[in-house]
Amino acid sequence: MKKVVTVKRRVLADNEAHADVLRGRFAASGTLVVNLISSPGSGKTSLLEATVKALAGELRCAVIEGDVATENDADRIRALGVPAHQILTGGSCHLDARQVSRGLAEGGFPEVDILFIENVGNLICPTTYDLGEDFKVVVLSVTEGDDKPVKYPAIFSRAEVAVISKSDLLPYVPFNLDTVRGQIASLNPEGAVLVVSSIGGDGMAGWIELLRERLEAKRRASR
Amino acid sequence: MKKVVTVKRRVLADNEAHADVLRGRFAASGTLVVNLISSPGSGKTSLLEATVKALAGELRCAVIEGDVATENDADRIRALGVPAHQILTGGSCHLDARQVSRGLAEGGFPEVDILFIENVGNLICPTTYDLGEDFKVVVLSVTEGDDKPVKYPAIFSRAEVAVISKSDLLPYVPFNLDTVRGQIASLNPEGAVLVVSSIGGDGMAGWIELLRERLEAKRRASR
Repeated sequence: MKKVVTVKRRVLADNEAHADVLRGRFAASGTLVVNLISSPGSGKTSLLEATVKALAGELRCAVIEGDVATENDADRIRALGVPAHQILTGGSCHLDARQVSRGLAEGGFPEVDILFIENVGNLICPTTYDLGEDFKVVVLSVTEGDDKPVKYPAIFSRAEVAVISKSDLLPYVPFNLDTVRGQIASLNPEGAVLVVSSIGGDGMAGWIELLRERLEAKRRASR
Repeated sequence: MKKVVTVKRRVLADNEAHADVLRGRFAASGTLVVNLISSPGSGKTSLLEATVKALAGELRCAVIEGDVATENDADRIRALGVPAHQILTGGSCHLDARQVSRGLAEGGFPEVDILFIENVGNLICPTTYDLGEDFKVVVLSVTEGDDKPVKYPAIFSRAEVAVISKSDLLPYVPFNLDTVRGQIASLNPEGAVLVVSSIGGDGMAGWIELLRERLEAKRRASR
């Protein structure tokens, strides 16, 4: 097992070096980069569809999609007229910074204001891989149960923003919002919690406003 | 990356050796062993709660729980009077056969008819780790969307049984059962698909019957 730990440490150090290069590049272009992480089926792609629709005509967006298989998610974004590039990881349970660099080159994106990176559906593996992002967003759907922050503490500690998704299903599932808010507050006292329905639209305005503010803050800081 | 692949191969070979020892032990005791795999929040623990309740007084059950953090799931099973042992994996995204061996020793279980292993909530990592089980069950909740089998083909190819859970929520979510059945049929033509609501009870009889038949078949084969 010691060998496994050593190799893992080397892989993470290598990833960090690539992430730093990406970070420099995103700083130079003034691009806000958001790394979205969740279980499979929590609604990351639906949130992105609603987001790029809401920002259409105001901010230039692009999306990098990470999946084990299929081009489905990138197709859904492209159908809205927004550039998207699909990274297929094969068996790997997370994206790494090298894949994002390659994806940007292959995607041939124009310069954008916000780059969304939708990570592979997984609450564990993507946590420790820096992709040069400004911040991580963890998405948790109300159908997954209100015990998830304490069961997956690493990602809920590290994500600056938690989006509680599919709030339209709250009447039909056992999910106590206060319980989840309390768990996140103790894991990550500075973290923002937003409750959103991508389909119904509830809470979307707050999410969009947060993105506008973070982009503005990044550009102010670089002036 | 070559080094990473080599280490991974060695880890899997070592796991396989431990799984074979477990398999021999389960054959000797005539214990049916079921390895449950799903995303976080798909309802594995709720399915197990309903299962051990349905089998109470008929078959002796025990549960090994795998989680990154918290003893919550084992507590839920023990509250029903069924022996359960919690394995905490720290950061690891799957159980391995060595952990199951150790968990059995630490759990000090009596001899049982069915041992359920609830793997860490993850649709990717647990796929390649044999735990000495008779078969894998993949659980997919209807809230996760009907594109998941093609997006996570490895686990849907390898699991002999797919349980589509939370069927009570079908009226409220976009989820086409025929689409999912078609995807699973092409990935795994021999696979069984069961549609279940652990809360409402729909479909539970078929699942319980499948467990009874598999246990009976295992004991018949060993006579």
